Amino acid sequence: MTRPGPAPSRIVIQDVSPQIEGGRHPVKRVVGEPVLVGATVFADGHDRLHVVVSHHPPRAAGSGAKGWIDVAMTSVNPGLDRWEAGFTPATVGIHRFEVQAWIDHVATWRDATRRKIDAGVDTPGDLLAGAGLLEGLAELGPKREARALRAVAAALAGGDATIVTDDEAGRAIEAVAQIALRRSDAASGDTLTVAVERERALFSSWYELFPRSTWTGSPEPRAGTLRDVIDHLDEIAALGFDIVYLPPVHPIGSAFRKGPDNTGGAGPDDPGSPWAIGGPAGGHTAVHPDLGTLDDVVELAASAGALGLDLALDLAFQCSPDHPWVAEHPEWFRHRPDGSIQYAENPPKKYQDIYPLDFESAAWRTLWDALLEVTLFWAERGVRVFRVDNPHTKPFPFWEWLIAEVQKRHAGTIFLAEAFTRPAVMRRLGQVGFTQGYTYFTWRTSKQELVEYFSELASPPSADEFRPNAWPTTPDILPEHLQHAPLEAFALRVVLAATLSPSYGVFGPSFELGETVPVHLPEGGTREELARSEKYEVRHWDLADGRTLRPLLTELNRIRGEQLALHTLRTLRFHGADNDALICFSKTAHTGPSSDPSDPGRASVLVVVNLDPHGTQGGVVDLDLWALGVDPDRPYTVTDLLGGDTYTWSGSRAYVELDPGRRPAHVFRVAQVSESRETSP
Amino acid sequence: MTRPGPAPSRIVIQDVSPQIEGGRHPVKRVVGEPVLVGATVFADGHDRLHVVVSHHPPRAAGSGAKGWIDVAMTSVNPGLDRWEAGFTPATVGIHRFEVQAWIDHVATWRDATRRKIDAGVDTPGDLLAGAGLLEGLAELGPKREARALRAVAAALAGGDATIVTDDEAGRAIEAVAQIALRRSDAASGDTLTVAVERERALFSSWYELFPRSTWTGSPEPRAGTLRDVIDHLDEIAALGFDIVYLPPVHPIGSAFRKGPDNTGGAGPDDPGSPWAIGGPAGGHTAVHPDLGTLDDVVELAASAGALGLDLALDLAFQCSPDHPWVAEHPEWFRHRPDGSIQYAENPPKKYQDIYPLDFESAAWRTLWDALLEVTLFWAERGVRVFRVDNPHTKPFPFWEWLIAEVQKRHAGTIFLAEAFTRPAVMRRLGQVGFTQGYTYFTWRTSKQELVEYFSELASPPSADEFRPNAWPTTPDILPEHLQHAPLEAFALRVVLAATLSPSYGVFGPSFELGETVPVHLPEGGTREELARSEKYEVRHWDLADGRTLRPLLTELNRIRGEQLALHTLRTLRFHGADNDALICFSKTAHTGPSSDPSDPGRASVLVVVNLDPHGTQGGVVDLDLWALGVDPDRPYTVTDLLGGDTYTWSGSRAYVELDPGRRPAHVFRVAQVSESRETSP
Repeated sequence: MTRPGPAPSRIVIQDVSPQIEGGRHPVKRVVGEPVLVGATVFADGHDRLHVVVSHHPPRAAGSGAKGWIDVAMTSVNPGLDRWEAGFTPATVGIHRFEVQAWIDHVATWRDATRRKIDAGVDTPGDLLAGAGLLEGLAELGPKREARALRAVAAALAGGDATIVTDDEAGRAIEAVAQIALRRSDAASGDTLTVAVERERALFSSWYELFPRSTWTGSPEPRAGTLRDVIDHLDEIAALGFDIVYLPPVHPIGSAFRKGPDNTGGAGPDDPGSPWAIGGPAGGHTAVHPDLGTLDDVVELAASAGALGLDLALDLAFQCSPDHPWVAEHPEWFRHRPDGSIQYAENPPKKYQDIYPLDFESAAWRTLWDALLEVTLFWAERGVRVFRVDNPHTKPFPFWEWLIAEVQKRHAGTIFLAEAFTRPAVMRRLGQVGFTQGYTYFTWRTSKQELVEYFSELASPPSADEFRPNAWPTTPDILPEHLQHAPLEAFALRVVLAATLSPSYGVFGPSFELGETVPVHLPEGGTREELARSEKYEVRHWDLADGRTLRPLLTELNRIRGEQLALHTLRTLRFHGADNDALICFSKTAHTGPSSDPSDPGRASVLVVVNLDPHGTQGGVVDLDLWALGVDPDRPYTVTDLLGGDTYTWSGSRAYVELDPGRRPAHVFRVAQVSESRETSP
Repeated sequence: MTRPGPAPSRIVIQDVSPQIEGGRHPVKRVVGEPVLVGATVFADGHDRLHVVVSHHPPRAAGSGAKGWIDVAMTSVNPGLDRWEAGFTPATVGIHRFEVQAWIDHVATWRDATRRKIDAGVDTPGDLLAGAGLLEGLAELGPKREARALRAVAAALAGGDATIVTDDEAGRAIEAVAQIALRRSDAASGDTLTVAVERERALFSSWYELFPRSTWTGSPEPRAGTLRDVIDHLDEIAALGFDIVYLPPVHPIGSAFRKGPDNTGGAGPDDPGSPWAIGGPAGGHTAVHPDLGTLDDVVELAASAGALGLDLALDLAFQCSPDHPWVAEHPEWFRHRPDGSIQYAENPPKKYQDIYPLDFESAAWRTLWDALLEVTLFWAERGVRVFRVDNPHTKPFPFWEWLIAEVQKRHAGTIFLAEAFTRPAVMRRLGQVGFTQGYTYFTWRTSKQELVEYFSELASPPSADEFRPNAWPTTPDILPEHLQHAPLEAFALRVVLAATLSPSYGVFGPSFELGETVPVHLPEGGTREELARSEKYEVRHWDLADGRTLRPLLTELNRIRGEQLALHTLRTLRFHGADNDALICFSKTAHTGPSSDPSDPGRASVLVVVNLDPHGTQGGVVDLDLWALGVDPDRPYTVTDLLGGDTYTWSGSRAYVELDPGRRPAHVFRVAQVSESRETSP
């Protein structure tokens, strides 16, 4: 007759959260971002349980092997058998956690015996039974605990019921008994993992620029270089960005090179698209001679680092027909029956300037190795952030492997997935290790769309597996609503990006100036792409004169830096507004809003954005004061960090009005009016 | 440098449904109940996929080893990468299924080549590439398929593009290629399981009776016996029930025996509670001498079976102080410090007539074995249905083991869990193998409560793991709303139970007569329990005279038998009604409503119940005609199977009125008016 070996545990541990796909992938957090663990835990019968979440920092954590750390879980909904507890990881790496539970026979016995004493039906046998229980546990417990348990057992045997009737003494002995109770019979849930990254993985401000366009000096415009970028780092730091992202800096192929506006034939002076990688001067580990040298990249990374910035390079795993790999490693490409290499196609369109790498090649192992070597090559030169071009056209297992291998050697390396594709694919890229991903924000314009999309992003499972990076525009995308739009439209979009999403980015000078002219198609209509895009030609920018978004970006980045609430994603809450042109939302710091007025950085932040760039909009907002950490019965102040004005509000409803000509939004810091101020008018 | 061995699959298979706890438990179905499998399946890039669900009947299925059967999955939501397909298990046992997917390189190549041909940009190379692809696949495929692939490859090599441009020929060769494509590189999801039981596991009508009360003859009332039950089987079958459930039939202890109304001291003639099992005449495998003999049970089971009924016995794993195990196996009980056995307690209450078994005993293995032997003892005597008393006070792993061991030897054995406790615990009992469970229906009275509760029960995850059995009352429970209530209240409750839930049960003559007097507490108020309960005394019933629910029960069971829609749980849909005293819902047969008027058993069934037993209620119902399988643009008829009237309705709204004095509900069979009738008025 078959049956389980030792008596199986009576305890069931189910529905542990957070977890992704049954624990196959780690959930995402950054240092200082709490992990709130929930679990459904119960047993047969009515015995009391003791439930803990036990967590373990990364094995290789610098501060020595700390081992497992327990946090007692609280029964938050006894009817649903739901328990919760949190911990906050402090080190980068893979943290483990599991829920453990055991029957608390001591608390169960104390409860029953106390109820009998209260009802006057107790017997000496009840105290003796407790003595026997504690004696038995003393056999299992560590020495010090065993002594305490035996002392209490002796008192019970002598008829002393203090331990039952006195809550403090009772709880103390219950605490002492847990080690032995756990040893005697504990159940464990699955071991789950948390991938903890540095804060910039969640909270980052990206500035994208084409080095060949950066130089704006006079008298003669000339193409920029990496040294020009180095010279501009101070300016970018002053704007408040913390990641400077450059499109590919490698040699550009000449075969089938694209001309301006992505047209077929390039002229002799057209520089080509930086994504057509590889030429006689080298491939993915070479620097375009017109931009500078490898040393320039090293210096650029170091100079950025000295200013607190990260340099981000582009990983575009594809080749121009002139890439050295085409001759050296034909086995990494797909061949047509005539022996030629298969270029990229989307029939009937042909992209003859690009050879995709063939991940189904029999030589996939050497290809994977080569691409890892490329990534490590740049990591070893100080690059800790990569923007990955079209990751969704390469196999997911490849990325899972590559990202793990890089992070193993260079902890804290950030990978941003440039994938604008179906939700399941974007989620999967997060699951296999991408730190951040581009989003649909670019096309979400109405209040309803923004509320739905960001509510989804800020909640599990999305918030545990996908970190959004919101871009109003990119070199590839000028969405329809920004074509021929006023600068106010760019302003409101960047306020949304920078406050809804902890990570956001702008496409450099083109965005600062609000470039709005799209490519016009020969057959009529427009493409969602900028005319005269820097992808295909050198541009010369003049940011010194005229209206730009520079002051707004500087303000936004300053506010983002100061207000910890804006460093978070999952504390996002939307509030009501009786005008669909006004969107209202708030965030609180991970640690909750501070009640200390000397700590304004931990205040709740309340944002109201006018979605109409053309005219003033006003309306009544209806606030969830509980979400703001505000006592609904007392007044509170809201200070506009974009404008400086402070208002004192009472209750949940307030009127707001925004003139896009003056400012696109209120970004309020919320503070409870202190008791003292309230009582001494 | 570590990396995966062979090239890992590019395909991701996620979120496969149905599944319970990541596949740790089988999902529940009965023979003929469809399994609709869903999965999120995708790969990198834009290649076409081929996705199947592969399922396997039980290993020991009578009809030989059929092996894995494939059903092609359909892309039901390409944007969400969601695929679906169904299969319908035909045999009892554990079925397995898994989702498999591979890249359909042939369909991908055909698509691209056709688009080029349409745009006039194709080359001979495109056809040659296809020829090469098919040649390569021919190397992998079975002989017949290989021949077909090579023939097409030769045509392509000769410049014949028929296979690309002709859809029929193209799809044919795509189908032929799948075996080889699958062999070359298929991804598999987890293997999941379905526990398939006989139909009665889902659809059953229970009649509970105390054998000692069954005899109602004259002139002298006497206690009933098992032979009396045998004599009444015809009557129960005529009522339309299919499971006859008896409380424990074993000897009853005399120590601390309970008197009438669960009072302390029993008099010499009080028969005691059947759940205080065990006395000098034996324990769990003995029959109470007053009821009859073991042979009577065997005959009862056989006679029931001959009428198409199942006999259900009670498994109450606890002992009276007079049970033989108390002396023979003291190690199976918990002992107090003075050596006495610990009786059941809920401090300050004592239940000294019951000794619980100690599942934490060191001797748990022999205890488990003994309890399995008890169950098998009755199974070997023809009992295939067990109602399990208080399963939630015994460990879950014990039940998981016991149920599997019994079903291994006696396929189709049904276990009903008598647990009225927290949702997580009730779900768990279903997960570990209980066929059915009692429900909160007994206390759900308002429309909102009923809609919420049954919507939850009819949907995953509940519908996949927990089969409800709805009882208006039990020997333990007379809910407050039925205390001192009119017979109309009992009528509406049993209509709800019998139509909302595929399984329901009634507590015999007490329910048929609508007994409404609760136990009055000495301190005032009532207990939710019948006064003069059969649990503690012999009752004599007279069902021949007066108003009883017998005609209604007979009608309900007849309708339930005829209408396949009422055999289902997960097709339940609620419809609107503008009066909160009217609840309106429908069900369709698993196979969908029949359009064949000669097949009325497969019609949709629409139920409207008046929740007010005191007065007539009327209102407009607003029907989801799509859920009823009705063309909204054509008239349809509704035939009241309880009353016989037929109405012709058009559109979604109709007025209904119910007088509880006449009938508690409409139970409509819905039929589309046929085209011919419609066009020839």
